[in-house]
Parts: sequence; structure tokens; C-alpha cells
Amino acid sequence: MHVSGYNCIAGQRSAQGQTLVYSIDAHTGERLPGAFHQATLDEVDAAVAAASAAFPLYRQLPATRRAEFIEAIAEELDRLDDDFIALTCQETALPSARIVGERGRTSGQMRLFAQVLRRGDFYSARIDQALPTRTPLPRPDLRQYRIGVGPVAVFGASNFPLAFSTAGGDTAAALAAGCPVVFKAHSGHMATAERVAEALIRAAERTNMPVGVFNMIFGSGVGEALVKHPGIQAVGFTGSLKGGRALCDIAAARPHPIPVFAEMSSINPVLVLPQALETRGAQIAKELCGSVVQGCGQFCTNPGLVLGIRSAAFTAFIEQLGGHLAEQAPQTMLNAGTLTSYSKGLQALLAHPGIEHLSGQAQAGNQAQPQLFGADVSLLLEQNELLQEEVFGPCTIVIQVADEAELLRAVRALHGQLTATLLADEQDLPTFALVFGALEERVGRVLVNGYPTGVEVCDAMVHGGPYPATSDARGTSVGTLAIDRFLRPVCYQNVPDSLLPAALQDANPLGIQRLLDGIPSTAALSRLT
Amino acid sequence: MHVSGYNCIAGQRSAQGQTLVYSIDAHTGERLPGAFHQATLDEVDAAVAAASAAFPLYRQLPATRRAEFIEAIAEELDRLDDDFIALTCQETALPSARIVGERGRTSGQMRLFAQVLRRGDFYSARIDQALPTRTPLPRPDLRQYRIGVGPVAVFGASNFPLAFSTAGGDTAAALAAGCPVVFKAHSGHMATAERVAEALIRAAERTNMPVGVFNMIFGSGVGEALVKHPGIQAVGFTGSLKGGRALCDIAAARPHPIPVFAEMSSINPVLVLPQALETRGAQIAKELCGSVVQGCGQFCTNPGLVLGIRSAAFTAFIEQLGGHLAEQAPQTMLNAGTLTSYSKGLQALLAHPGIEHLSGQAQAGNQAQPQLFGADVSLLLEQNELLQEEVFGPCTIVIQVADEAELLRAVRALHGQLTATLLADEQDLPTFALVFGALEERVGRVLVNGYPTGVEVCDAMVHGGPYPATSDARGTSVGTLAIDRFLRPVCYQNVPDSLLPAALQDANPLGIQRLLDGIPSTAALSRLT
Repeated sequence: MHVSGYNCIAGQRSAQGQTLVYSIDAHTGERLPGAFHQATLDEVDAAVAAASAAFPLYRQLPATRRAEFIEAIAEELDRLDDDFIALTCQETALPSARIVGERGRTSGQMRLFAQVLRRGDFYSARIDQALPTRTPLPRPDLRQYRIGVGPVAVFGASNFPLAFSTAGGDTAAALAAGCPVVFKAHSGHMATAERVAEALIRAAERTNMPVGVFNMIFGSGVGEALVKHPGIQAVGFTGSLKGGRALCDIAAARPHPIPVFAEMSSINPVLVLPQALETRGAQIAKELCGSVVQGCGQFCTNPGLVLGIRSAAFTAFIEQLGGHLAEQAPQTMLNAGTLTSYSKGLQALLAHPGIEHLSGQAQAGNQAQPQLFGADVSLLLEQNELLQEEVFGPCTIVIQVADEAELLRAVRALHGQLTATLLADEQDLPTFALVFGALEERVGRVLVNGYPTGVEVCDAMVHGGPYPATSDARGTSVGTLAIDRFLRPVCYQNVPDSLLPAALQDANPLGIQRLLDGIPSTAALSRLT
Repeated sequence: MHVSGYNCIAGQRSAQGQTLVYSIDAHTGERLPGAFHQATLDEVDAAVAAASAAFPLYRQLPATRRAEFIEAIAEELDRLDDDFIALTCQETALPSARIVGERGRTSGQMRLFAQVLRRGDFYSARIDQALPTRTPLPRPDLRQYRIGVGPVAVFGASNFPLAFSTAGGDTAAALAAGCPVVFKAHSGHMATAERVAEALIRAAERTNMPVGVFNMIFGSGVGEALVKHPGIQAVGFTGSLKGGRALCDIAAARPHPIPVFAEMSSINPVLVLPQALETRGAQIAKELCGSVVQGCGQFCTNPGLVLGIRSAAFTAFIEQLGGHLAEQAPQTMLNAGTLTSYSKGLQALLAHPGIEHLSGQAQAGNQAQPQLFGADVSLLLEQNELLQEEVFGPCTIVIQVADEAELLRAVRALHGQLTATLLADEQDLPTFALVFGALEERVGRVLVNGYPTGVEVCDAMVHGGPYPATSDARGTSVGTLAIDRFLRPVCYQNVPDSLLPAALQDANPLGIQRLLDGIPSTAALSRLT
């Protein structure tokens, strides 16, 4: 399968630089055919200039036109064939069934944003009609809707080469919002990124989008220049705490600071409550093991911390969980760097006197061994960093607490999380209402009797949460609300219908719901002034 | 009128510190009676601890209970009497009619947020019902609404001692969102702040709110400690670019960064278009002069830049505007620091060879003289900082451009603004559609045939805009949308009705509109799982 290794700028391929980077076979560690041209600073500049030039045109297209583009992307993604699937598997060591599923998820995500554009609630249109006879002063006609913030830089994640990458959730949300994208390809799947970028460009051409609506650059040194570029107005990122925080710091230090929506580190606590443990502890141990090792533990929502109240039943549960984990085969990780990080994370846990290794083969070789650790609750209460930072891979830490009161203290010691899960029977719930409330204040999503891995793409999803889960708890990177990150409100005072966007025109030509003098309404209106 | 000068912490008065600060009579420059105790670091800590302790209780109150509190604040504000008005006038040199009006605006703003709480759209409730028979995987029940982010630090502005201060828009929005507030009183009106804080505490007591829902601290050195405090989750600020940016930098450098919503610097360009100039240039000159000198030019939305196309009519207009400004009496500014800044700003303009002084008495004495300057468009096109930064006071700069194309370039050279205004006749509009689009991308509010001073408090208002107008273009500090800054979404997966917030319960007990499987609905529902 031919790889050009060229950057995509304004709908053209570009390879001005001499620095070459290579994609690696995740199973063998060997270089794959083809070389990728790291973008030069001029190319970064050209990519942002292309996005900036596209912005005024693209943002003012009817939302239905943007929906057509996004649906065309979905079609192009669905057409990516078995060779493409094989290529992605080669780059990431993820199994083909997973990549086939992720392809469907990624095109489905695009189609969901097209629906959002067609239904129009993303505009958040509001109209306060003029009150010309109000005293002491009349009220002018005031209308509000939301426009895109401008060109968005998106950084792909390693662990979802499709759904959180080139045409992933951040790109979909930005394009839906009317924001052109400059995408920085992840080094872990550059050939995959090239194929997906080509699909995006085909969709843009088919639907006559402005050139520059989507651009992609390669290279390890280009991210900082991209985030610093004055043309970039917001950043989407999924990856490590270190990487995400670095981008936040760069963005905050700009002459004109911009928001960074970084999804970073979460240990996703799972609380196994007494009654549930009593009635189905063995089943929970088996299911939880499945959630820990799924996809080699390479999910942002991987359960990294298990909490329960000390009891004979919980001791038995820990043994069962350890037993299941010991039976799991090692798996190949996304790339050598991921395996190195995993090994280092395990070493830090093994070296700590307050942490006990409970189950798992010694980590060695080129695959990741599932691991179970036990930690003293005092470490959590003291906010020891080892217990707050994600060990990315098939590893989890179990902590026993004395009682409900200590469980509440433990929850209150947690940093921000993407998810928290209660495994609970009906009788557990009244006892743990305070715990539930404390979890709400620390997470983006609370689950009861489910497992955090598996993130539904829908209107109600929140894949976000307080720091360090993300850099901005008010956002989500999965689900339709993700579009909000890239929109800002604009108010029109006494603006004639001819200059107003369709969403705010008197006749309501889009037929959308608007907050009209404080009441939701789809009505047309006649101007009072 | 007795002033205690004590900080308000957890509903109690506190004066642990020995550092005293004093309020000044804005007219005479003399110390007013009473001394204010600068908060110690322990008191800052205690104030945040009180807010943090109040948060779990306060955020979980029914929204109608928070509405009662907010309405009680409005009542208490309305009861502040003539002595209070006189005190505020003394501290700020603002006329009493203005303060009376501002008192009504501030209580009205509170009542508007109470309406928002009662109507419930701030929850943004979303429900995606379970699809238990979906293949390959069932969909769980997923629900989303928004909760407060946690304790909010609010910094009062000097220029609106009521509406943007102790019980101003940021406080109202935070309290409505369910976030306790720690308010840092502005040094320019500390006695006023004490009276308003007392009114807030009375309202909290009358409506049985948790102690710590509102706290206030005095002192010039305490802001940094407040923003750095790990218990604070967001910051609201109105003031200078320098002050706002400093808080943003502090917040971004925290171990756990938090958002700062700072409303800072705007020059609010006014474009006088040819046909409007032709038909009513003289009237515009008079009205624009009124907007420039209103309140001694001490408004965030003061028109600081006037743009027009070079012509005999525009030359005449400039002369008329200069003539009107020359006739305006000098006015006392908010405080000595404001006058010093104004004088320095004028000196910088006078010293620049590309800027010409067109009208206004030489600035001297203890009042501000209105001023008109002319600048060469090249300064704007080169993004000279002198033309981008607000001179806070009754001063405006006029720029002549060659034609529509140069006007578009000039608009594109502008930094972010709170407002932009087109003074235009119907025939002007088609010619300047591109200019209108370029303005949209740079401002929070576009006006046609109005003046930017005067900010309506309503649903559709945006008092925000791209940097440096604010630190986050996605927010507004006036109008009901201001509540969004202090809310974040939380998702509930498969959570039993008994643990769900009322806004998301099956029966829809609040009767609010929810996005139910992608369609707005007030329906109750029966659980499918």
C-alpha cells in the first residue's frame, strides 16, 4: 500500500522538509515502508494560513452544507477497505475486529454531528424582542447565536487510531462547529492518518468545501509551533498528562491565550459495595477483570482503582480478581514507548513499601502482563501521586477501607476523573448517597452496575471531568456536546434581518427552536421596531 | 454610617490582620471614616474553606431554593437606602441618579437569574434511553445535566460598584449555578462592598442557606492567594488587561489550573458608513459625543475608535464631533489611580508622531477632560499597540480610511472587542457585508444604529468577546448566559431514579424541557431496562 508521507495543506500535498520520520510495525518493531516528511515551520504556517483563509467561508456556510460534508466524510470512512484495516492493525497491534468496529464508530460519530447540525440546537439561538415603549429606556432588539471560534489544532491519540484521531471526535466537533482543522498526526499510526486524511480531502472536494478546511501535518517537533501560531484559536488533545499539560502551558503563555481541551489522565475508581459483593462478588470479579484487560488496558476509562470495605467477602473478591488476571495472556501494546511507560509504572508500584503486588507474571519481553496490586488506604488519603496517576495498561490497584466513613474520605481524596463506577445492589444505595454525591463532584460520568470501558457516542455522554482527567471540566470529547468547546456566542443588537444569520431571522427559516423572550419557541416573529 | 471593615467569612465577621486599608472620598481624595482589615492568609484559607464546605450542600439544593435566596438578595438590595446611595457616590464620584439606577439594575439582574433557575434550561438536561436489544451491543441508559464547578472567586470592578461588584453579575451567575462565592472587594468602594455583603448575608440567613455560601475579603495583597487556593474552581474578574492577565497566568500555573473569566480591554470600534453620514452626520456626531463622555467614559463599552471613509462629509463630521467634545465639562473620575492612568494614556497618544490631537482642553487638575485624536490608518494596519489598548476615560480616536477595501483591512487588524457598531443606512448595508462578517469574528456584540454604552441584562446579551476583550470568548459576564461559565456537565449511566437529580428523573418532576433521544421534550418516561 503506497504511502506518500506528505503533509496535507490547503488540499495539496506538501513535503518541503528534509527531516523524515517512520512508522513502525507494532508487533515486530520494524520500520514500515515509506517515509513521512516532518512539516517545516513554513509548512505549519501555511497549514494555519489555509485554515484561517477557509474560516470566513466555511463558518458562514449553511449548517446543512457542513452536514453534507460531514456525511461525505462518514461515507469515505466506511469505504476504507480491508487493506486499510490491515495497515492500521500493523501500526497499532490492535486486532482487526476492533479496528473494523472503530471505523464504524468513527463514521457513526460523524453522522451524529451531521444530525446536530440539521436539528440546530447547537446554535443556542436566543431572541429578546425590542421593547420600544419601556421606561425609563426602551430595549433594543437583541439576538444571540453561536459561531465557531476559528481554526482548531487537533492532536490525535495513539489508542484510538480512528475514533480519537484524524477524523475522530475532536475533528468532527470542530468541523461541525464551523472551524477548519489543522491536524497533527500521531507518530504511532502515520500511514493510517494519511489514508484517513485522504478520505477527508475527498469528502471536502466532493462537497465543494473551501480548500484549507482540513489540513494535516507530520512530525514530532511541530506541535509546539502549531499551538503557538496566532491563527489557531483552540486546541483538542487526547494523550498523556505530561503532554496535555505542556500544551496547556504553551497556550496559556501565548500573547493571546487560547483554550486547550486536553483529555489526559484518569484512574476511574470502581467501588464494590457490600451487598453487591455479597450477592454477585464472583461475577463482578470476572467482569471487572475483563474491563481491566480489554484492549490491553489501553483505554482512558480503564478501571485503575478498585475500592471496597474490608470484609471476608472483599478478601475473597480480591483473590478471585487476582486469579482471573493471572489467567490472562499478555498482549502487544500500541508501540514500544507505551510498553516502556507501562513497565516503568509497574516498577514504581513494585518499589513502594505501601503497595503490594497481588497477581500477575513478572513484566518482561515485548508484551504487557496484566497486574493486580493492593495499596494501603493511607496512601490515597495522603494523596500519594502513585495512586492518582494512571498506569496506562492492563493494571489495577485495589484498596480496602474500614467503613463507609473512610470510603467517603477516600473518594474525597481523589483527583478529577473521567468516570466513577458503583457496583451496587438496591440495598447499598441509601447507605452510600454521600459517597455518590462526592463522586459527582469529581467525575464527568458516574456509572451504576456497568464498567467504564465502552464510551457511548450520544447526546448525553460526558467524556470529560475535573483536572487532571481533562484540562477543562466544562467540556467533553465524546458525544454531541463536544461541539460546545469550539463555539462562542455573538449578540446582534438592532441588526436588520438582511444581515442576520438565518438562525436569527424573523421568519425562522431554519424552523429551529429559539429562546424567545425567555420561552422556547419555533415561531416566526414580526419586528416591533 | 458605621463601617466595621471586617472580612465576612462563613457568615461571621473576621479581622485577624493588622494591615489596614482605607476608603477614599473620590471627590476630595481624603480618607473616609473607618478602616478595613486586610485579610490574612489564614482568613483567605478560612473563606475558601467555608465556601468549600458550603458547596456540597448548596449545589444540591433544589434550584427553586437557590432562586428564593437570589430573590431575597434582590429585595435586600432594593432596601439599601439613600444613605447607602450617598456613601457609594462619595466613594466613586458617580452621580446618585446613576447609583440609584445601578441598584435597580443589580437587583433586576438577580431576579433574572432566579427566573433562569425556575425555568430550568440552565440544566441542559439530556436523556438517551437504554436500547437493550441493540446489536452488537446494547446501549445503557445515559443522562446528562450540569452542576456548579465549585467555589468561585469574584473580583469586583471599580466602574460599576454595584452591578459588577459584590452582588454583581459574576456573583449572581455563580450563586445561581450553585457555586459559593469568595468575593474580593475592590479598593475603590470598600464601604459600599461592606453594605452589600451585609445585604447578601441577611438574604442567606433569611432563606436558610448554608453558611459560607458568600464570603468577602478585603485587601490589596489577597487576590493572588485567593486565585492560587486549591479550593477555588473558577474566577470572575472585571478590570484592566494587566490585572486580568496576571490572574489568568496565576490560574494557568496552578498544579490544578482553573478557568478565569476576565473582562478586560476593548476599544469598541464605531464605523460611520457613507450613506448614514450623508443623511444624519450631524446627529451622529452629537450622539457619539454623548456616548464617549457618558459616565466620564468609564464604561467597558466606551467607543474608543471611530472609523470612516475619507470624504468631505467625514471631515465635517470629525469637526462636529470635536466641537461637541470641546463643549463637554470635565468630570471627576472613579479614583486618583484612574485619573493617573487616563493622563498617562493621553500623554502616550500626544507623544506619537502618527497621532494628532484634534480637540479637548489640556489634561490638568483633578478632573478628566474629554479628548479627540486622529490617527493614521497605517498605525492600525501595523497593529500599533497604542491603537489596540483602551484609554479608560472620555477619549476617542478617529481614523480615516481610503475606501471599503481599506476599511475591511482595518477591521481585520483589530484585536478582540466587546462590541462593534455600524452606523449605517439601509443602502450602506449590502456594500459592507464583508466588513460585517469580519466584525462578527472579532467581537461579542454587533450593533447597528445604536451606541455600545448601555448593556441590556437579558437572555440574548453577550458582554464578552475574543482576547483581550475577555480571557475566554466563550463566556459572557452580562445576561443569563453568564451562568454557563460556572457549570459543567455530568453524565449518569444506568443510575437508578432514586440517585438521579430531579432534573433527570423519569417522571420529570420539574417539568423542564429535556433533549430526549435527540428531540426536545417535557415528557415523563418509563424506564426500559
